[in-house]
Amino acid sequence: MPPMTEAAVSSGCDTSVLKERAGGGATQENAKAVLRPQVTAAKEKYRHISAYHSQIQHSCLSRDSGVTPSFIGFRNLMVIVLVVMNLRLMVENFLKYGVLICVKCHDYRKQDVFLGSILFALVPCHLFVAYTLELVAAQPAKGVVGREKKDTLMEGTVKEQRAFQLTWRFVALAHAVNATLCLAVTNVVVYYYIHHPGIGTICELHAIIVWLKICSYAFTNRDLRHATLNTSSPSQFPEIYASCPYPQNITLGNLTYFWLAPTLVYQPVYPRTSHIRWSFVAKRVVEFIVLSVFIWITSAQYATPVLRNSLDKIAVLDLTSILERIMKLSTISLIIWLAGFFAFFQSLLNALAEVMRFGDREFYSEWWNSWSVGMYWRSWNKPVYLFMKRHIFSPLVGRGWSPFAASFMVFTFSAILHELLVGIPTHNLIGVAFAGMMFQLPLIMVTSPLEKMDDPTGRVVGNSIFWVSFCLVGQPLGALLYFFAWQAKYGSVSKMSAHLS
Amino acid sequence: MPPMTEAAVSSGCDTSVLKERAGGGATQENAKAVLRPQVTAAKEKYRHISAYHSQIQHSCLSRDSGVTPSFIGFRNLMVIVLVVMNLRLMVENFLKYGVLICVKCHDYRKQDVFLGSILFALVPCHLFVAYTLELVAAQPAKGVVGREKKDTLMEGTVKEQRAFQLTWRFVALAHAVNATLCLAVTNVVVYYYIHHPGIGTICELHAIIVWLKICSYAFTNRDLRHATLNTSSPSQFPEIYASCPYPQNITLGNLTYFWLAPTLVYQPVYPRTSHIRWSFVAKRVVEFIVLSVFIWITSAQYATPVLRNSLDKIAVLDLTSILERIMKLSTISLIIWLAGFFAFFQSLLNALAEVMRFGDREFYSEWWNSWSVGMYWRSWNKPVYLFMKRHIFSPLVGRGWSPFAASFMVFTFSAILHELLVGIPTHNLIGVAFAGMMFQLPLIMVTSPLEKMDDPTGRVVGNSIFWVSFCLVGQPLGALLYFFAWQAKYGSVSKMSAHLS
Repeated sequence: MPPMTEAAVSSGCDTSVLKERAGGGATQENAKAVLRPQVTAAKEKYRHISAYHSQIQHSCLSRDSGVTPSFIGFRNLMVIVLVVMNLRLMVENFLKYGVLICVKCHDYRKQDVFLGSILFALVPCHLFVAYTLELVAAQPAKGVVGREKKDTLMEGTVKEQRAFQLTWRFVALAHAVNATLCLAVTNVVVYYYIHHPGIGTICELHAIIVWLKICSYAFTNRDLRHATLNTSSPSQFPEIYASCPYPQNITLGNLTYFWLAPTLVYQPVYPRTSHIRWSFVAKRVVEFIVLSVFIWITSAQYATPVLRNSLDKIAVLDLTSILERIMKLSTISLIIWLAGFFAFFQSLLNALAEVMRFGDREFYSEWWNSWSVGMYWRSWNKPVYLFMKRHIFSPLVGRGWSPFAASFMVFTFSAILHELLVGIPTHNLIGVAFAGMMFQLPLIMVTSPLEKMDDPTGRVVGNSIFWVSFCLVGQPLGALLYFFAWQAKYGSVSKMSAHLS
Repeated sequence: MPPMTEAAVSSGCDTSVLKERAGGGATQENAKAVLRPQVTAAKEKYRHISAYHSQIQHSCLSRDSGVTPSFIGFRNLMVIVLVVMNLRLMVENFLKYGVLICVKCHDYRKQDVFLGSILFALVPCHLFVAYTLELVAAQPAKGVVGREKKDTLMEGTVKEQRAFQLTWRFVALAHAVNATLCLAVTNVVVYYYIHHPGIGTICELHAIIVWLKICSYAFTNRDLRHATLNTSSPSQFPEIYASCPYPQNITLGNLTYFWLAPTLVYQPVYPRTSHIRWSFVAKRVVEFIVLSVFIWITSAQYATPVLRNSLDKIAVLDLTSILERIMKLSTISLIIWLAGFFAFFQSLLNALAEVMRFGDREFYSEWWNSWSVGMYWRSWNKPVYLFMKRHIFSPLVGRGWSPFAASFMVFTFSAILHELLVGIPTHNLIGVAFAGMMFQLPLIMVTSPLEKMDDPTGRVVGNSIFWVSFCLVGQPLGALLYFFAWQAKYGSVSKMSAHLS
């Protein structure tokens, strides 16, 4: 309205402007200028009489209003409150304990490092034993491949089948001895001679990975050999294998690639990228280092005091306090878990894949959106999932097992490996990791009806069940129990105990 | 594949099935049955050789993947973590303090209740003094309205204008004395004679509301009278007023309606609903009661210990601890604030509006999404906002003030009222509420460029500035300072102090 005001002032007239507010956000203005030369007062406007309440309107949070308002601001508020609450806990932690991070305080025995190094060097040797076994086993197939090149008619299959079965029994036995030896030696050494749980875990993880790779190598080559001996058509093999038909894949180079590649599933040929982007590798390695330091700091500064403070509560079974400790630990373990997931599956495996020019980088899919526990287990750790599917689930189903029975086998197998991975380095095979994995089966069954559901509410419920059961109860409770068992056995993890007690 | 398996079994043949997994989720199956009657082994499938890594794929969190994955699961996780963190704090609080809620522990003097009741009865009397004043002032206008009905020509306007100005001066003076007396008496009584801050706040709030209603009644009727005396056309009045032209609105019934209606802006006529839905009223009242109890429990159990524990930290100016206390208090004060907002603006005002058949229920709009501080102040408290806009901002702008100067006046006026509302009942006019309101002006200026921005990031930033400044810093800091001032003056709020110290 400035022009009108100006005009009114310049003509020295009284301008009466009535401004009416129509409801609903739209402002309607009725402006009237009535000229009355008798009155000299310059500006008079009846501002106080506008009808601000001019129509029936509902509060936007009332059901009457029909439309649901946007709540995007509350999402922002949630993030802010989460940040503030955790910042406060950090300040509280600092006021209570000061700085607990101490590089020199970490004590590990020289023996641990020495034995760990020997294990690290020995474990891959078993892979090369497996290679030698396959080299011997491949001999009959070489003849078949040669003959097939001459004529495609099949001759003497019965004799060859028997020879194959006999060879496979020996090869299978030799592989089993070799693979079991790999895992058994590591288990014994880590459990009895490597005190430090960190070094122990690395050794155990390495042994399990190599063990799984040996299994995959043996099973895949058995099927390749059998298929080569028994069928004439090469079209039954995956197309990608065409460039390296059995037994050409039984070379040291091929095995070395499988050993270092970020997969647990052996294939003679993998999809490959054209070149190594070293800047990509560098970024992933920096990510991995930063996240590892972050995890170390979080564990030392935040997780350790919580674990330590919970010991006497667990000892006297003070359930309310244990609940409080689990809830406090859950946020910390969740952060460590997410950082660890990213560090390993995104940063480390991608860096390794880039260096190996390994093409299939689907090490995980969107597991965080899983609205059933089954979806989570199928998507968070693809290397293990693919191994289980290819070498346990799928063959069992092929033999006529029901999918449930096959799943039961997969989870039992996985539960044993988890118990080894956690129980051996902490020197406490208390069965919590085993039980935790087995407990996934009823959870999967309970949440499986949600999988087919297309309802967003059902998905939110399923996703919440997953988060609560896995990240907010399962993991912190497990960590607490293994820590308690460790303390009951040894009394202390490091020199830090004196600071905290 | 069950039919094929069945066929193979019944014919006693060896069926070789090769299952190939094409990447990207789609599963492609190449099934081949080769009949070889020589071999009796029933089922053999080369499950172990399928190519699970068959194409180049990127990790979904890598930039290479092109599409950003959905993170909806993390939103669910945030809600869960917030709930768990607060549940933990509740358990921690319980373990530390036990139950602090105590109905009988609340001490209030008989004198407080007695004086409060007298104030509650006296304050509305000022409204009726205002009515009497308007009744006298309306006398000349009655003549005009009568004359206008006879002929539309304007006569003797100069004389009438002078009479109007003279009357208005007397009326304005009388209104000012009446309104100021209303507020001044309440201020003196509450500050010096009502010890309990809760009773004091209710009295002070009531007096301020009635004071604002008197102002609106006087200003609106002045403009209505002036407009009626000086212009012949009734079209300048809002349409809705047509059913009750000035001075027909100067009745006791009309004023009583304004007194009880949930608005601070006087209009001769309001939009009305057709009938009272008593079930709606009942629901809102139940909401109000439940939320009030919730606020009381939260204050007693969670806010009081935090406030009390912070006293010695403020006394020695331990800044880290004060920061920690403010952060701890912020979540609690935020919850109380949100519950209080809903209880008052949604439940209570809607219940009142329904009983009064008051049609315009827009007591607030989506203030939680505000991406500037100015938007927040325009949307969270519509009754006060409309009063300020109609009786201060708009008239000042009409007189040629700049919008900034008018806003400055509005916020100064509002700051004084806020200081009265908080400082008088707590017997500490320390100026924190005043300063807090005045500090809104620079915040509004800083965030106003964001208002025009259409960028989602800008909106998130603006919304976060609003939440942090207002709900996470401003309110808890203010509460802390008034509580500290109270403790410095009186030492204790209730008998609970013995429990906590």
